[in-house]
Parts: sequence; C-alpha cells; structure tokens
Amino acid sequence: MFFASDNAGPVHPAVMEALNEANSGFAASYGADALTVDVRTRLRNIFEAPDAAVYLVATGTAANSLALATLGQPWQTIFCAPLAHIEEDECNAPEFYTGGAKLTLVGDSDKMTGQTLLDTLTALQVRDVHRAQAGPVSITQVTECGTLYTLDEIRAITDQARMSGLPVHLDGARFSNALVALGCTAAEMSWKSGIDVVSFGGTKNGLMGAEAVIFFDPAHAWEFELRRKRGAHLFSKHRYLSAQMAAYLRNDLWLETASAANASCARLAAGLRAANIQLDFEPQANMIFCSIPRVLAQRLQLRGATFSVMQGSIDTGPPDALLPIRLVCDWSITHDQIDQFLEIVSS
Amino acid sequence: MFFASDNAGPVHPAVMEALNEANSGFAASYGADALTVDVRTRLRNIFEAPDAAVYLVATGTAANSLALATLGQPWQTIFCAPLAHIEEDECNAPEFYTGGAKLTLVGDSDKMTGQTLLDTLTALQVRDVHRAQAGPVSITQVTECGTLYTLDEIRAITDQARMSGLPVHLDGARFSNALVALGCTAAEMSWKSGIDVVSFGGTKNGLMGAEAVIFFDPAHAWEFELRRKRGAHLFSKHRYLSAQMAAYLRNDLWLETASAANASCARLAAGLRAANIQLDFEPQANMIFCSIPRVLAQRLQLRGATFSVMQGSIDTGPPDALLPIRLVCDWSITHDQIDQFLEIVSS
Amino acid sequence: MFFASDNAGPVHPAVMEALNEANSGFAASYGADALTVDVRTRLRNIFEAPDAAVYLVATGTAANSLALATLGQPWQTIFCAPLAHIEEDECNAPEFYTGGAKLTLVGDSDKMTGQTLLDTLTALQVRDVHRAQAGPVSITQVTECGTLYTLDEIRAITDQARMSGLPVHLDGARFSNALVALGCTAAEMSWKSGIDVVSFGGTKNGLMGAEAVIFFDPAHAWEFELRRKRGAHLFSKHRYLSAQMAAYLRNDLWLETASAANASCARLAAGLRAANIQLDFEPQANMIFCSIPRVLAQRLQLRGATFSVMQGSIDTGPPDALLPIRLVCDWSITHDQIDQFLEIVSS
Amino acid sequence: MFFASDNAGPVHPAVMEALNEANSGFAASYGADALTVDVRTRLRNIFEAPDAAVYLVATGTAANSLALATLGQPWQTIFCAPLAHIEEDECNAPEFYTGGAKLTLVGDSDKMTGQTLLDTLTALQVRDVHRAQAGPVSITQVTECGTLYTLDEIRAITDQARMSGLPVHLDGARFSNALVALGCTAAEMSWKSGIDVVSFGGTKNGLMGAEAVIFFDPAHAWEFELRRKRGAHLFSKHRYLSAQMAAYLRNDLWLETASAANASCARLAAGLRAANIQLDFEPQANMIFCSIPRVLAQRLQLRGATFSVMQGSIDTGPPDALLPIRLVCDWSITHDQIDQFLEIVSS
Repeated sequence: MFFASDNAGPVHPAVMEALNEANSGFAASYGADALTVDVRTRLRNIFEAPDAAVYLVATGTAANSLALATLGQPWQTIFCAPLAHIEEDECNAPEFYTGGAKLTLVGDSDKMTGQTLLDTLTALQVRDVHRAQAGPVSITQVTECGTLYTLDEIRAITDQARMSGLPVHLDGARFSNALVALGCTAAEMSWKSGIDVVSFGGTKNGLMGAEAVIFFDPAHAWEFELRRKRGAHLFSKHRYLSAQMAAYLRNDLWLETASAANASCARLAAGLRAANIQLDFEPQANMIFCSIPRVLAQRLQLRGATFSVMQGSIDTGPPDALLPIRLVCDWSITHDQIDQFLEIVSS
Repeated sequence: MFFASDNAGPVHPAVMEALNEANSGFAASYGADALTVDVRTRLRNIFEAPDAAVYLVATGTAANSLALATLGQPWQTIFCAPLAHIEEDECNAPEFYTGGAKLTLVGDSDKMTGQTLLDTLTALQVRDVHRAQAGPVSITQVTECGTLYTLDEIRAITDQARMSGLPVHLDGARFSNALVALGCTAAEMSWKSGIDVVSFGGTKNGLMGAEAVIFFDPAHAWEFELRRKRGAHLFSKHRYLSAQMAAYLRNDLWLETASAANASCARLAAGLRAANIQLDFEPQANMIFCSIPRVLAQRLQLRGATFSVMQGSIDTGPPDALLPIRLVCDWSITHDQIDQFLEIVSS
Repeated sequence: MFFASDNAGPVHPAVMEALNEANSGFAASYGADALTVDVRTRLRNIFEAPDAAVYLVATGTAANSLALATLGQPWQTIFCAPLAHIEEDECNAPEFYTGGAKLTLVGDSDKMTGQTLLDTLTALQVRDVHRAQAGPVSITQVTECGTLYTLDEIRAITDQARMSGLPVHLDGARFSNALVALGCTAAEMSWKSGIDVVSFGGTKNGLMGAEAVIFFDPAHAWEFELRRKRGAHLFSKHRYLSAQMAAYLRNDLWLETASAANASCARLAAGLRAANIQLDFEPQANMIFCSIPRVLAQRLQLRGATFSVMQGSIDTGPPDALLPIRLVCDWSITHDQIDQFLEIVSS
Repeated sequence: MFFASDNAGPVHPAVMEALNEANSGFAASYGADALTVDVRTRLRNIFEAPDAAVYLVATGTAANSLALATLGQPWQTIFCAPLAHIEEDECNAPEFYTGGAKLTLVGDSDKMTGQTLLDTLTALQVRDVHRAQAGPVSITQVTECGTLYTLDEIRAITDQARMSGLPVHLDGARFSNALVALGCTAAEMSWKSGIDVVSFGGTKNGLMGAEAVIFFDPAHAWEFELRRKRGAHLFSKHRYLSAQMAAYLRNDLWLETASAANASCARLAAGLRAANIQLDFEPQANMIFCSIPRVLAQRLQLRGATFSVMQGSIDTGPPDALLPIRLVCDWSITHDQIDQFLEIVSS
C-alpha cells in the first residue's frame, strides 16, 4: 500500500527489457546513437511537430530549469502558481540555472488563470529598469494538487502571455496522466494550446530516470545543448536514456501506464468518497489530497500504508483532528492494494 | 575495433543484472533506499574512511563541478593542469557551479607538479582583494593523456597545497584504472596522499551512468546535498544509481573491469611499439596517444576502426604526415579486436 | 515643488565643501586613505559598536545586495515584505549577488511582523533538501510606504529570526529619517534590537552617492571585501566616498537633514489633512502616500509640482476618481514650496 | 613624488568646479537629467558615432564587466592578454557578471596579436558542445605594461576576431593617454579599427569616479541598462557622474590631462635612461616599468617617493639586486617632483 509518491515505484518491465536489449556492443556517445534519433522522431510524430527540438535529461528538475533558463533572462521574473514544483520543490534550481531570475506567484493555489495572470502583470505595472522584467510563464499539468487545466484554461493563459510577449512553459512531469484524463492529443495539450516548451515526464510514469524537453520553435536548440552540457546533464552513455524513452513511446506504453495510474486513483477516490472522506481537491489524474482523522492515519500507517502528511504531525494531536494527506497512485499499484487500503479506511 | 572512448561501451552484465534485480516493488526515493545505504558502507570500507560523506550522481562533470563548488568560493581560482577535463571538456560547468570561479592552468600539459604549483602560487604573489584568491587544487588520475601520478607526485602536490591552505580534489573518472596500475589501495591514492575529495568514476568502467563523490571530511555534507539538489542532480529513483554502484563494488568488479581495460591497452601498446609507432605519452592505464601516418589512419578507418584524431584532418593532407590519435580501451574490448587492429597497423 | 523623490535633490553644501577640501594632492586608493579610517571610527562610535566592520559603497542597491549575499547562501530564501525595495526596485540584484537565492514575501504590504514571519516559516514547514532553505530576514526602515517599525516591532521580528537561526538585515536607505522620528539611538535601532547588518543610507539624505554597510559581527569582513571588489563596487578614489560620509556624520549633519525632511513632511501632511485629503499610510518620516482626485493631480502638475503616480494614469480617467500618489520630502525642500503646493490643493 | 598609481591623484579643478555648478536644485534621477543628455551627445560627436549607445558607471571594473557580459554568453570564453586587468585585477568580476564565462589567455605578456589570437583559436579547434565556446576578444589600450597597440595591430586582431564571428571590446581605462600618444582620433582607435565596445576611462585621468561604456551598435542598449541596474551600478543622483564626464569632454580637458601625464612620463623616462636605468617595457604613455637596484629603491622610498614593487621585496635581499618597479604619472604630477625623483636616482 505505497501511496507516498510515483517516483518510488519500479521501472516498467518493457522498459527494463529495452535497456537490456540496448546493452550490446558500442554506441556513439552523447546522443549520437541511433536510439536517440528514433526517440526524436517518435516525439516529433506524437506531438505533430516535425521541426521541434527534442532533448533528453534524467531529472524533471533539470528539464524545467534548463527549459526556463533557455526561454528567459536573469533579470526577468517567471510566473507560476504558488504550489508549482519549480517554486516549492527544486531548491532554487530555476534561480540557479537562469542566473538569478525571480519567481512571481500567480493566483493562490495550484493553478493560475488568464485573469490572475493578467492581474499580476498589471500589478507589475511600470516596466522600467528598476523592476524585474516580465519573463516566461510556467504552468504544471497535472498540477501539484492532482488537478487539471482544461484546454480552454491553458489557452486563456497562453493568450494572455502572448499579448504580453511572454513564452509559456509546461511542466509535464505527469503529462501522460493529464493527456489520458483529458482525452486529447499531445499537440492539442501543447503547441495547439499556445505552449512553447514542454517538459515531457517519464520518470513518474514507469521510467528509470528520463525526461524529454521539447521546443516547438527550434531556434534555441543550440543554446539548450550548451546549457545542458554546462549543467552537467549531457549523458555520455546516452543510449540508456533513449532506450527508456523509446520503450515508453513504443506501443503506447506511456498512455497505458498513465491510464493504469489514473484508473487506480479513480477507484481509490470513489472508495474514499463512499467512506465520506473529505477530498481537498478534485482528483483528476493520479493524485488525491484528502483530510482524514489522525487516528485513521495512524491506523493506516500501522497496517503498512505509506503516504505523505501535508501539514501537522501524524503522531501528536487530537485523535479526531483532520490531517491533510496526499495519496499518489503509481502505475504499478494494484487494485488489491487499493481495496486493502479502503478496507482499513472503512473498518 | 572501437577505440574512440570508454563511454561508448556496454554496461557490464553483472551491473545490468543488478538493475534487473533492483526493479521490484517500491523503494524510498531520493537516496533513502537500502541500496544507497549499502553503497555508502561499501565505499567507506574500500576507502578505509568510516566518516566519509558519500554521494552519487550520474555524470562525471556533475561530480567534479559539485565537488569543486563545495570546496571553493566564487572569488577564487581553481588550479588544474592545462589539459584537465574541467578546463577542456565541461563547457564551463565548474565556472557555472562555483558561481564564477576562475581556473588557473598549472604546468604545460597533462600533469602539474609540486614545483609548478608552487611556481604558480608564487606568481600570483600579492593576495590582495584585487586578484582571484587561491582556491582548490584539482588533479586528474588517470590524466587526460593516459598517464599517472605516482603516490609521491600526488603527495608533493598536496603538501604544497596544504602549506597554502588549499583543499585538493581528485578527478577520478578513471580512478579504478589508476588504482590497478599503481597497485595501491584506494586510501593510499586518496586521503593517505592528502586528497580531500574524490570524484570516483564508474561510467567509464562498465556502469550505465553513476559516479560517487567522496568527502573525507564530512563537514560539507549538507552543503553538497543542497548543491546537488539545486543542480538538479538528485535522482528520485535513486536506487537505480545505487544498484549500479553496488554491483560495481561487489566482488571487486570495479577492479576486474579496470584490469581488463588496462591489460587490453598494454597489449595494444606493445603491438604499436613493435610496429614502430611513436607513442606521444607513456600509456600507463587504458589510453594511448600516438602519432600515425595519415594513410594508416585512413586505412584503419576504412577497415572499421574507430578512434579520435586529436589535431588536423584525417582526410586532407600529405599521406605520410603523422596524425596524433587517441586510442581508448574500454573494459569490453576484446583481444581479438586489438589483434585485428594491430594487424592492419602492421600490414 | 519637487516631491518625486529624495534622490533628485542637491548635495548638502557642507558635503560639497568636504569634497572640495578632500581634493588636494595624492591619497592612497581603495580605502587606505585617512578619511576612510575617520569614517570607520565615526560610525563605530555612533553605533556604539567598536568591533563593527564598516564599508562604503556608492548605491543603496549595492549595499543591500552585497550585505544579503554575505549573510546568506544561494540555496536559501530571503524573507522580506512584499513592497520591499529589494523585491520591487532592484531588478533582481539580490538574486544576482546571492547567486540565485529566492525572495519570500512576508505579510501583505509594507511591513512584516514577528507573527507573519512565524506564519511564513511555519508554512515552509519541512526543511528538507527539496525546498529553498530559510535564509536572512530583511526589513526596511523607513519602509517603502513611509511608515516605521517601532523598536518593539523590530525586536519581535529579530527574536523570531533568532529562534530560527536566521540573521537579520536592515535596509536603512532612510535610516536617519527613522532615527529622528523614533528619537532613539543608532544602536537601539540596530544591534540592540537584534539587527546583524545595516545598510546605512546617505544618498537620499544629502549625499552625492555614498552608503555604509555595517556588520556588527566582523566575522564576514573579508568575504564582504571580496564580494564588493568582485561586484565592481570598490572605488579606487575612495576618499571621495569617505569625504561625503565624514561630512555627513560631522556635526550631526545626518540628523539635521533628516529632521528637516521629516519636518517638511509633517507640515505637508498636516496641510493635506486640513484639506481633507485621504492619507493611505500614516506618514511617519519623509514620505506621504495619499489619494487625490485626478483633476487635482492634473492641476498640481500643471502648476509645476512633481510627484509619482502609484497606479493608473494622471491623464486618462474620470476627473473625480482618486489617484494614489507619493510625495517625498527631500532635506532641501522649502516650507515655501510646501505651502505653495498646499495652496494649490486647497484652492 | 607619488608614482604608485594614477588613481590616487586629485580630481581636476575644472571637474570639481563642474560638480559644484551641478549642485543646485532638483534634477531628474537615474540618468534622465540634462547633463546626461549632454554627455551622450558629446561622446557620440567625439567618436563620430551618432547611433552609439552611451552609458556611465563609476568604476572601470564595472564598465569592463558589464560590457563583456553584454557581448558574450556564460558558456563562452573571453580572449585577453595574460596581464590584462580583467584577468589580473578584478577578482573574478568578469566571471561574475557573465554568469561564469571563462578567460583564455592569448600570447604571453601585455599584448595579443592577430597571430597569437589565431593560434589560440586554432588550438581550441573542435567547437563541439564539450568546450567553452569562443566569445568576446578584449584588448587593453594603454596596456597594463604602459605599451600601446598601433592602429594596425588593433586591426589585425579585430580582423581575426571578425573572421571568427567574435565581438571585440577595448578596455580604455587609459584611452585618452593612448589617443594623444598615437595622435589619432577616437573613431580611428575604436570602431574604425573594428572595435565594438569601448570602456572609456575617466577616473585615472582626472575624474572622481566616472567611466563611459560606448556600444557602437546600439542593439544591446536595453540589455546593458538592465545589467547595469541589476549590478547595482545605476546611480540615482546620476547628474554627478554626468557633470564629471561633461567637464572632462569640454574644452578638450581629457586630452589636456592625458597629454600632461604622458609628457611627465616622457621626462621621467628620459631621465631614467640618462641614468642608465633599464626599462623593462617601452614607455609609450604614462607608465614606466623599470628595474633598479634594491638599494636605490630603498633610498627613493626613504626620501619620500611612492611606487609599486612588481616582484620581490624592497626590504630583503642583496642591495645590488635589480628590483622591478612601476612608475605611473598622474596628470597632476609636477616636473619638479619628477626632477626631484631623478636627482635621487642619479645621486
């Protein structure tokens, strides 16, 4: 009953198989191998973007930071939601990679809107030399609260950004989970909605450690390559990043694992609702934020369930007090494990 | 006949096996897994350094840059040999990670000496506020020219550094190859010789992408962890870095692969000498720098050999002119491949 | 009737006189001159801090950025009020000088409190490696809204910071105006209230361009000197910075000019109140934020008054709509000019 | 007898007079004042560059660092001579402002040539992603050894740079001294010789602290303004920078002071030659590098002369051993002082 994170599960067997297959003889290093060419082609096809510049790195923070540094300037501010991963969970990596850009928080929670972005830009008001200049906008899909931007919501934001001349980055650590939830195409959820650059996650959805960065306008390609190398994120044995990503894209594995994770989450959410557990956000992909009595949290933990407590202590406090927790469904979680969890909740 | 680099070879089967074995169920992320504990213990034992702070990253450039940034300050200069990897092959990653430190080149080729370090420090002379301040010393073992520092040579450098209050970093991308060549212990080649921090390479010796950074004084441990995270080099599915390194250290695999590479290199060097090929550096580990007639280089290439041309063009120029080339022996190169290469040389 | 800023007024005649006097013969450069020694002694005496490290720079942004960079680390976040100069008016200079630290906004306007600081620190909650680490706290006295922290309010903040192990910086661009308003000593408003470092402003109070940075704990002195030089803020003809500051401190000129500015502001505020103008903040030093009908703003401008419009346009909109404006009293503004301004307001 | 530096002399009386004149009433801050407009026009006229972007800062290091950061990228290397001020005397300011660019040393002393630049570029050879990329070229005129580049020598370097697509910066801390020595125009010594950006010094030639940065192509103007502000080098009371520079340019004062300094230097050099003192570089502007017996150095010091000892100790060593010293002639040094110095030398 492991619900602590989707970065603690195993690599999908098909991906391990691909790594084993790739492991024969010599292959040109630093991305000059055939598998990397294959991955680039596959991603361009999937995104219907034949000119896109496509790169692989091993961590989501690297994907985000390098993408934002390439899009922006050190004297700018990046616009993101207050709970964005780049604000909360990357230990100033975006500030480091951009050379000291600022992050300005838009809205008050998991999502920004076209309107809150406009309000924030308006409040910045004077664009003189004294202030941080307006820079890239970054949104997260699936958000850090397990919710989704609809295509219309994305479009409202990118329209606003476009009017202000700002590029838009999409942190897609859970891109696949969002895609299957929305039932749209990768192109629709990205460049057709006005997105300029996507961090296309794989690690949280069955890979060992591989993320793609996709620039729909290849103008910054060489700069990105230099930034990746300078950031020490260019892998020498690059074929092993590519082998993962190739397996991920082959036979729609990326959609299959994401669908599994989302379905598990839906089952878990239904069960929690049936047990009258309060959901703090509408779970739209593979994460649930809910509040449960401390005593229940303790019982779950005692019985072997693993999950994150978002605020307060599981050990100290009134037994009946509600404790906000996060439950993440990895692609590999089983229905048995979910049902076992729900049984404890209901008992 | 692939002699272009030791970062283009396959992962050792025992390492792939370990990855497959590690791939089951959930494991705590970000290094809180059992394999990581195991690796830390193994490295402390091997280095006879029970207090050492031990970390894993995926690239050698990350290991070097993060180590040097932790040892030094942005207003300092790092002392290294002119052909050092950190100077020549990391696209300003050390400058980036240190926040703008300088690199001062010591000596004129692959190695510095205690004397050339002293000369350089003396030339800096006035240590007032106007100049870059003296910072970490970094040496590479095996050097970028395939040569070795003896323990006495290392000691002469670290003694000099100690007298100036400077910490010493060892870039050990090919640490294992050096160790088996020198026939000493890891402790002798590091802290017993005055080294403060080691980048302990694995990728060039049979791993997929895993390097350890070992601080013999753990005082900077937490700073390193923050720098690693901020640099986007903290892996979420950390067990897969650890599984590689654990397999590497188990049953002396790291020494076995290094010995194989060195032995291949010795065989190749002997053959080249027998063919009267001029060796530009004494090959002491798994790399050979030699100069061959252009026409021979062309013939080798035509017959399928792969290697790096260090200067000039293989295609254009007088057929008899000597072309400096580099031949690197991966652990996986076979004696047959070497003999085949030598046959072409001699024919 | 110039109320746009206190950085547009003339240099006080006594300061110009001191510059003229200093302008004879040779003087050791880079701060090794006698005037600099004199300034250091004077500031240590004024602050009752015989061990303090004292430095001069030419701009307030340099003073703030260099001080914060010396106090903190790149992976930390600096706590400040949303309207702080370091957040709003320095074009990412703090982010640049710290090497990419973040700024976290505390409270919702001009001031933080011990409580809002505690709330913010609590919300950061988990201090693991993924988040920006808690770093220096920075408060501004006089605030950017013309208000003051009482000594008790400062103490509540520094107590809270001390409990979390965080150093506290005071941006004292208008330190003198605050001091005469509070009627306390420099020591009381700084280290006796728990402040670690002060940016002691001079430029906005009659100098040409000179600010002191005062570290009450001299441990970071040498680091600051290196940061100042590396930031290109070490003046070669340093005597001309020192001559300004020496004249400022001699005969209590710094208190005299600040008192004049504050008295002018009080006169202006009283007149505005008498004319039923709404004051948006309580003017406690030399700045007034008030809202006046657009038509009045236009009339003032037409008659030659200069001031900042904080939001909206002076030219476009309903004549009766209230326009928020800022009125700053330089030390050199005359009562005649104020009365003339008030006459227009009342007419 | 002060020959230690030209940054220790007084401000020229005409410049002080201009500062006093400027000190009346209010003036728009941050460079929006009339004097700044005047300075911009004057410099454009002098340089015959009506479109040039012209900015003022207070230190030469700021001028150089901001100019180079604007011209280059963090992943590039800047080419300069080994004794360049940006390499030796700015405590990593160029590395800081560029965000971590490298400096590559060209030639072996005070000057590079077209040929040594070509050799260095050729040695960099492979321009792949692993190496620092070729960036701006920076030359110093007058060099740090008191020598000059002829216009032909400058042209040879800029031609070479142009062929490699690299911009060229001229560190003109002593631009005026070079100009009067060469007897050419400012345009000839800059853009007509292929220079892209000039740091136009004033501080070492009679100003208090004011340097201009001149971009002949104004494309980077706004970026420079943002970098200057972010670097905390935008003066609020900007008129006092402009007043200095305006007085400097008025009535050819800049040429007058430079001529005086050069003439003093020629007189000193002639006297030293007559006394058979060995000159280590040909003194072409206002600086002399020569070697004198230690006992003479001691006698000069004892009699009140001030100068820099370039290597070794004035106090310890054989009395007859030659000590390399530097003698700099400030514009304000008198012929009496020079003759007095020479008298001691000859006695």
